[in-house]
Amino acid sequence: MTPEEGDAILRDYFAPWIQDLGLRVEEVGERHAVVRLPWSDALARQGGGLCGQAMMAAADTATVIAISSARGGFVPMTTVQQSTTFQRPVAGKDVLVHVRITKLGRTLAFSDVTLTPDGAADPAAHASTVYAILT
Amino acid sequence: MTPEEGDAILRDYFAPWIQDLGLRVEEVGERHAVVRLPWSDALARQGGGLCGQAMMAAADTATVIAISSARGGFVPMTTVQQSTTFQRPVAGKDVLVHVRITKLGRTLAFSDVTLTPDGAADPAAHASTVYAILT
Amino acid sequence: MTPEEGDAILRDYFAPWIQDLGLRVEEVGERHAVVRLPWSDALARQGGGLCGQAMMAAADTATVIAISSARGGFVPMTTVQQSTTFQRPVAGKDVLVHVRITKLGRTLAFSDVTLTPDGAADPAAHASTVYAILT
Amino acid sequence: MTPEEGDAILRDYFAPWIQDLGLRVEEVGERHAVVRLPWSDALARQGGGLCGQAMMAAADTATVIAISSARGGFVPMTTVQQSTTFQRPVAGKDVLVHVRITKLGRTLAFSDVTLTPDGAADPAAHASTVYAILT
Repeated sequence: MTPEEGDAILRDYFAPWIQDLGLRVEEVGERHAVVRLPWSDALARQGGGLCGQAMMAAADTATVIAISSARGGFVPMTTVQQSTTFQRPVAGKDVLVHVRITKLGRTLAFSDVTLTPDGAADPAAHASTVYAILT
Repeated sequence: MTPEEGDAILRDYFAPWIQDLGLRVEEVGERHAVVRLPWSDALARQGGGLCGQAMMAAADTATVIAISSARGGFVPMTTVQQSTTFQRPVAGKDVLVHVRITKLGRTLAFSDVTLTPDGAADPAAHASTVYAILT
Repeated sequence: MTPEEGDAILRDYFAPWIQDLGLRVEEVGERHAVVRLPWSDALARQGGGLCGQAMMAAADTATVIAISSARGGFVPMTTVQQSTTFQRPVAGKDVLVHVRITKLGRTLAFSDVTLTPDGAADPAAHASTVYAILT
Repeated sequence: MTPEEGDAILRDYFAPWIQDLGLRVEEVGERHAVVRLPWSDALARQGGGLCGQAMMAAADTATVIAISSARGGFVPMTTVQQSTTFQRPVAGKDVLVHVRITKLGRTLAFSDVTLTPDGAADPAAHASTVYAILT
């Protein structure tokens, strides 16, 4: 799979409200993906920080890209569980969403997701997700 | 606090992208809140089901309303952790987000959130959240 | 299923180290179970409080009892995910572990677990679990 | 801090039931720790696999060692939240518990924990934890 095929999955399978995040696939591989969440004032809550909801949504969405890449293309799947911690505020920066697939089973997949502001060393948030693969 | 004051918090403190969810406060109390996530095609992913990202975002947002109600008005706070399970698909229905505050400490608050399609008996999703209260 | 059959499952399927917790099944039903975690000094950490690890272990174990009861007897299953929040300390009291099965699917089951000191109104801890049912 | 000082923390602050796990500190550093969970038949459930409860307990316990190491010695702390996924069975092998502290704040610390059977490449389980530091 190429990043362009990843972007096509974002366009074809996700809700319009998720499209509004403007996510862009930067990198895909056998067991990982990197997706960019561009900074936008529309995602800033009162006070100017990036809303945590956008980070949870980006983590979930980027996992679909990573599992698709690991499977060689989109397959129907559904999120079973997502746990997210919020560790540092983000303001005025894109966030890079790094997904590693730690287990790709026949019916369940597990991922580890780190969300880091572009150029920063430390994560803003971390997520673990479990997906059911439906085919 | 009244539901109208809850709606004012939604307007004043949340990101424009969260406002797009069209959440409405139905009920607030000493230790709980009920918030409606109206059905919208903009929240439907390919296939017609409500996207899980909208449910995670609604759970997080509704918890802010419930903690504000428990505190008698909005206080600065930040999500520390959210765990969400996705149990049943939703299509074509509003979702009612029931939040119970199970612990309201001086610096940390805990909630239990059930998301149920309007008129249904069984939950579509469940979330547990931890918040840091900043004042 | 009866509480006695639940106790037999505890004896037959769990590790000796889990048996050391002395869990007792108090109640089982179509979609729920109540299990008692008896106070023991062996479970107290320095300072005298019940260790959180015992509460996580009790929540997991009690979910197996509840799913077994919902299925009419023990079935092979494995924990996929457990999220636990720790809300209040416990000292010198048994803890009652209330499990509700919120979804019993063909391959996945979801539970909601509240751990409350005997006689208390407020929870010490809360857990959400996801199980894969292997038959 | 040295591994020996880590082992002393295990002896001095944890419940006897946790001591029964036989955990040993292998490595400590500024932002990480490695703790060994030795294989024991007492931790095997029916069928011979390592019980998940032992892995949750080891992840929690090892995080205390890592935070202590990051702070230069034991400080009073309490687990706020732990999320654990179980990805692969373990049988007959020690498990190495790798903890990275991803944020060490004044009042909250966050860790990322990977549990891998000794000699294996892929994780058996993964945990994320949030701790409140009480001093």
